[in-house]
Amino acid sequence: METRTERSELTLAAILDTALRMAAAEGLESLSIGEVAKRLNLSKSGVFSRVGSREALQKAVLEEYDRRFLQDVFVPAMREPRGLPRLQAIVRLWLARVQRIEATQGCLYCKGAFEYDERSGEVRELLESGIRRWRAALKRTVLQAIDAGHLRADTDPDQLVFEMDTLFVGLMRDARFLADPKAAERGEAAWQRLLGSCLAPGTAPGPAPSPEKHPR
Amino acid sequence: METRTERSELTLAAILDTALRMAAAEGLESLSIGEVAKRLNLSKSGVFSRVGSREALQKAVLEEYDRRFLQDVFVPAMREPRGLPRLQAIVRLWLARVQRIEATQGCLYCKGAFEYDERSGEVRELLESGIRRWRAALKRTVLQAIDAGHLRADTDPDQLVFEMDTLFVGLMRDARFLADPKAAERGEAAWQRLLGSCLAPGTAPGPAPSPEKHPR
Repeated sequence: METRTERSELTLAAILDTALRMAAAEGLESLSIGEVAKRLNLSKSGVFSRVGSREALQKAVLEEYDRRFLQDVFVPAMREPRGLPRLQAIVRLWLARVQRIEATQGCLYCKGAFEYDERSGEVRELLESGIRRWRAALKRTVLQAIDAGHLRADTDPDQLVFEMDTLFVGLMRDARFLADPKAAERGEAAWQRLLGSCLAPGTAPGPAPSPEKHPR
Repeated sequence: METRTERSELTLAAILDTALRMAAAEGLESLSIGEVAKRLNLSKSGVFSRVGSREALQKAVLEEYDRRFLQDVFVPAMREPRGLPRLQAIVRLWLARVQRIEATQGCLYCKGAFEYDERSGEVRELLESGIRRWRAALKRTVLQAIDAGHLRADTDPDQLVFEMDTLFVGLMRDARFLADPKAAERGEAAWQRLLGSCLAPGTAPGPAPSPEKHPR
């Protein structure tokens, strides 16, 4: 039997999910408690009592997006051995997520970066710290691949991370706005080229782990 | 002496310039005839009589942005010889423009692609056709560089154009939202790597023409 607390948690999860889809499609600034309530057939005060202010909802949505992204990309990649296998896993899982989620629902971080470039405040700070945290995680993985001798010792980790992240921002635009069915394939080819230019002599890129290895 | 027509043209130019800055900073959807009128100390009906509807203003702004971009990047590059020199000129002038304009004012095309991914209508169509026209111009330049023997015969022109454009979308995010002072330098390094992987054997990348060669 469902307890009252369980029901309340389910309602909050439904609010976050609806708000996340709204924000990914129309932008974080488009979020309104009234509209979320309407879509879920809840009272405005019911939504308000669960999430607080509009800004609190925006922040909760970003945190939920972040949690899902890490769960789909970072967490399963951490099960792979350090170095090249883990780096390959991150890219493969990231590409799979773009095809499965962002190509149809949009990317909150990409959309947000262009939506908030002129704004200040807590939502912008959360967006920026999320991007920087992800870049730091990528950089750690690249450094481990250099230490393991998989990538050339003279690889500039910041440059490689810049190029990886840049590739995904551009890919998001092509997959979504231009609705290019070849976007993920082009992203994959770009990654192979980028990786090829950094591989240590004698290192094979190795089979990138298939996303199917990680059921969700 | 200023004629009435000249004065009217100057007013229209001022309206477009103000609207363009608003749109690049806050998004095309943020444009309002009332706000443009207020910033220029004109009457709302005065602005309305010159530009027509809000949608007409949005379209005029996009066309003005496009005109300036082509004037800064494409037109001077066309003065360079076909093939690699022209391709290098495009990238160099594009990077220079990002540093001079987009890093502080934003890029209407990048912002617009994420702002309009869920919308339909004439503004979206104009945005999309602008991106596709630019990609087609890049592709022609790449094909000429292949024909001239500057780039490897097996270069996939669509893939190269995808990677070039993707690089700039990501660069725009870094230069503006993350305010990374090294963004242009990293963009340049990424381009050198990308170009290096496509150069025909024995072709030197050659000195990329300096943007200072093209006074504006």
